[in-house]
Amino acid sequence: MQPLYNVLLLTRGQCDRFDVVLVSPRNPLNIGAVARAMANFGFSRLHVVAPFAPVWREARSAVGAPELLANALESPNLAEAVADCTLVAGTGTLTYRKPGQPVVALPHLAPLVRKELDCGGRIALVFGSEKHGLTREDLSYCHLLVEIPTNSEQPSMNLGQAVAVCLYELAARAPEAETDPRAHSDPAPTSERLELLADLIQETMDATGYSPPGMRPANRYDLRLLLRRLSLSAHDTRRILGIFRRILWRLRRAPASGDEHV
Amino acid sequence: MQPLYNVLLLTRGQCDRFDVVLVSPRNPLNIGAVARAMANFGFSRLHVVAPFAPVWREARSAVGAPELLANALESPNLAEAVADCTLVAGTGTLTYRKPGQPVVALPHLAPLVRKELDCGGRIALVFGSEKHGLTREDLSYCHLLVEIPTNSEQPSMNLGQAVAVCLYELAARAPEAETDPRAHSDPAPTSERLELLADLIQETMDATGYSPPGMRPANRYDLRLLLRRLSLSAHDTRRILGIFRRILWRLRRAPASGDEHV
Repeated sequence: MQPLYNVLLLTRGQCDRFDVVLVSPRNPLNIGAVARAMANFGFSRLHVVAPFAPVWREARSAVGAPELLANALESPNLAEAVADCTLVAGTGTLTYRKPGQPVVALPHLAPLVRKELDCGGRIALVFGSEKHGLTREDLSYCHLLVEIPTNSEQPSMNLGQAVAVCLYELAARAPEAETDPRAHSDPAPTSERLELLADLIQETMDATGYSPPGMRPANRYDLRLLLRRLSLSAHDTRRILGIFRRILWRLRRAPASGDEHV
Repeated sequence: MQPLYNVLLLTRGQCDRFDVVLVSPRNPLNIGAVARAMANFGFSRLHVVAPFAPVWREARSAVGAPELLANALESPNLAEAVADCTLVAGTGTLTYRKPGQPVVALPHLAPLVRKELDCGGRIALVFGSEKHGLTREDLSYCHLLVEIPTNSEQPSMNLGQAVAVCLYELAARAPEAETDPRAHSDPAPTSERLELLADLIQETMDATGYSPPGMRPANRYDLRLLLRRLSLSAHDTRRILGIFRRILWRLRRAPASGDEHV
């Protein structure tokens, strides 16, 4: 009737590079609601992380379950699910957390997403389980956190409704001019590449005895956040990987004690 | 944590003049989801029209049902529910309908709502039942229709998700400069006043033998749409009421046949 209004802003090709990721959802009805909102706003790639088998089975076998549920991807952990993504945006209520990465109000997310898609990037929008949201570990794979502005007395949204609101904002809301906090225009590295870089840096830290073994998990967490905060380009990442490969090769060739004499 | 972002744009006083109206909702879970989205975005006035008693009872008695469900208003029909409203916005998919009033894409609704609230008006955002949406009769009480831009292959949204998206747009989305299709800045008449005016005009039409009795329902429907399309101010409405009262008084004083001799 009114095709003028009923126009979504992302192309099918762009939507195909946009994953909605649910980490361990607990309610089959919510999974169905997420799938419906995705279909409403033209998205088709659903990725489920560590689903509870009976919940996931029930959601997929529901009457009228859309095709995108049948085609959904599964991964054992978030790192694998977002491995090929260049921008990972986590969602959730931040009232009781101190985020380690930039927080973007949902109305300001669209320009970032659009720019990333224009550069050929791949995006993951990540939602935690209904009860606890994303864990600290999950959050460390996110470049930024998205917050839906809500009433402080009742901030926590239902999962299906939160997904609907986010996808409406990204697919149906007109873009507005925004300053992009991520400065470069080169393509961004994938999450997997950043993790490889973190591996190398960690190895280097270990090889150099940078910190006691008990500190390793905390260091790794900080390192992940740091790498995402830097907004490295794919090119930068390749260079830094090369540098750390070289450092490690050198460290291993020369006995560690040898360095003390330099 | 990030109060800068977590700010809603309507004051409590404004939210108190904003009713979410559900016409005959069929699913208690959806009613609960609507209530939750309202609480998330700071709204508290829920109005239910012609609810199915068992459905309504179940929704209100659900564990964790918010206070606003207990305080919800009930009306037997939409006319009564929106009687004191100055702007009634209907929602739904328009793919198969030819709307009789302006259609506004959801992203453009906020400026209209804000302006109406600033003038001291009262707003109803009306949602039809899950299965059929708003009836033609329901739609005739609406000044405008709101459409959420969706994928044409899957346009129909879940009720709870549609409410969440609308309230997000109205309460959390930054206002943008818009031209207001409703031209005047005087307060608008309430729905009840417009209905009173329609009564008088209808009486006048009947008294003058304007159309055969079989056409009356259709005429009334068109009349309702017309009055809402005119965007009358409260002042205009008072004047026109006065005029039609006068006409009717005159018509009744003089025998109808007398006019034929003029």
